[in-house]
Amino acid sequence: MNTLWNKYPFIYSELENVVDIMKNNAVNREKTIENSLLDLINSGGKLLRPAFLIVSAGFGNYVSEKFCNLAAVVEMLHMATLVHDDIVDDAKTRRGNQTIQSKYGKDYAVFMGDLLFSRCFMLLSSNTSMENMKLLSEAIFNICTGEIEQFSSQFSKEVSVKKYLKRIAAKTAALFSISFYVGSAESGCSKEVVSNLSKIGYDIGMAFQIIDDILDYTGQADLVGKPVGNDLKEGIYTLPLIYALKADKTSSLEKLLKNEYTDEDVCKIIDITDKLGGIDNARALAKRYTKRSFDRIAKLPDCDNKNILRELAEMLLSRKY
Amino acid sequence: MNTLWNKYPFIYSELENVVDIMKNNAVNREKTIENSLLDLINSGGKLLRPAFLIVSAGFGNYVSEKFCNLAAVVEMLHMATLVHDDIVDDAKTRRGNQTIQSKYGKDYAVFMGDLLFSRCFMLLSSNTSMENMKLLSEAIFNICTGEIEQFSSQFSKEVSVKKYLKRIAAKTAALFSISFYVGSAESGCSKEVVSNLSKIGYDIGMAFQIIDDILDYTGQADLVGKPVGNDLKEGIYTLPLIYALKADKTSSLEKLLKNEYTDEDVCKIIDITDKLGGIDNARALAKRYTKRSFDRIAKLPDCDNKNILRELAEMLLSRKY
Repeated sequence: MNTLWNKYPFIYSELENVVDIMKNNAVNREKTIENSLLDLINSGGKLLRPAFLIVSAGFGNYVSEKFCNLAAVVEMLHMATLVHDDIVDDAKTRRGNQTIQSKYGKDYAVFMGDLLFSRCFMLLSSNTSMENMKLLSEAIFNICTGEIEQFSSQFSKEVSVKKYLKRIAAKTAALFSISFYVGSAESGCSKEVVSNLSKIGYDIGMAFQIIDDILDYTGQADLVGKPVGNDLKEGIYTLPLIYALKADKTSSLEKLLKNEYTDEDVCKIIDITDKLGGIDNARALAKRYTKRSFDRIAKLPDCDNKNILRELAEMLLSRKY
Repeated sequence: MNTLWNKYPFIYSELENVVDIMKNNAVNREKTIENSLLDLINSGGKLLRPAFLIVSAGFGNYVSEKFCNLAAVVEMLHMATLVHDDIVDDAKTRRGNQTIQSKYGKDYAVFMGDLLFSRCFMLLSSNTSMENMKLLSEAIFNICTGEIEQFSSQFSKEVSVKKYLKRIAAKTAALFSISFYVGSAESGCSKEVVSNLSKIGYDIGMAFQIIDDILDYTGQADLVGKPVGNDLKEGIYTLPLIYALKADKTSSLEKLLKNEYTDEDVCKIIDITDKLGGIDNARALAKRYTKRSFDRIAKLPDCDNKNILRELAEMLLSRKY
């Protein structure tokens, strides 16, 4: 279990249940499938989406079994997108471990992701309403559209802040928001609380992805669990670079952009991006999203989970990995 | 529309509705997505699964809109598996057209398949019961397991008839069977009729896949719409070869099996497989499945669709593409 949760014994123990549910769902007559799923489950992901679903459900009538099942679904959906993401990025490592695509090949990873998706819908059909089923499939649909938009704008210098935000909203914030929605709606919270929590999820998700993209510029590979400068090499231009390009009066940065990068190029681009204020400006926007989530959290009914939400949003903003 | 349906005006016109529904579901703000989905929809697939769903629904209370939507879902699920299948097979053409993976790249194809899957579940959540949702996700789960088993036994001379049948049951017959099930169950057929139609779907699906695998040995590339000998080159050993290996007393065939094949190797293997009776024996098994479906069809309540089912099963057995 990620050390993040040591401070919160209830979340910790519920996430242990979530992990057990995922392990039960990994059982397969084909042992390669089972083992690679267990590798994924044991790889020490932060389990943020399931944790947020559980915390949100705490604002209503919490029933452990039901919400742990739903929490397992959102994490497995996330895992499925990661498996497919790693194919596209040709990623060798994820969370410090070898990726499925690099260990077993891309072919295998394609169907492992599909298998995870279908397993999620199998689990969902026993644990949620049609309405939520629809929302979750829409979320995946949006993630896919976001991903496709991402590589159809690969190596393009024309990515605007607006386009970037739209992309990460689809790619990341949607599933965060849905996790908050499902937790609160299924536990019978009032419409107002459900709507507020869904927006909090969206804001936290946006801040989370911006920080993630910043860490690709500033992180240490051993902490982040994947190589730094990876997005850049893949031609995925994220917020720090987009802001830096806007501030780049002499076009010194723009001139460095091409269709392939060496490690040296990457270092140089990161350096100039930083000097042009790209990283600071990106961090400022992540702070604004977090601040907006704080304002919304303040309006939630008083309970322990309210403070936990605030602490988590704050921690995600200042994280180093 | 495939000429297959010219004989059946009602199915023909309902399939036109199905195609329209699929086209409506292809609309996307990202035009590359929309166009590649339209390419897929217009590529002239046989639309067997949706047709069988519609024919099965005719045994109960048929409601056009509902069943055309469900029929669109099973075809889109099938399309999604094809898109991902083509990545794994590195297939250049499918139904005579360039595949998504070859036209836009594997990365794109990964998320296009996911996008189709999620769209199916979005459509499903407005048109079916949780029970059917569960069955359909189980079917995809089985397809994925079957696919993974297929390439974990790639180039293995140890594939038995039993293993092969298990693989094609998961890979193909499951979705055929589900199409029959969904059509009959949702139209309010009796339990007996639903169970019988599901089994008929399974048998027709098994026969269909065996014939498909035979066509990889005997077909003409321009008719089949994909290169012949493809499975063999990919190290996927199907029923004709499995039967031939069993009959191969002198190991002349086994000696030819290796990890890479030239066109010349493929011709030689096909020739020996045929001489050893592999193709005839495989065709005999497809006939047995079709015969079993006839026996089951005979027990269905009398109606026009009963004859149509019989004709379709017969036609699929004797098809040349």
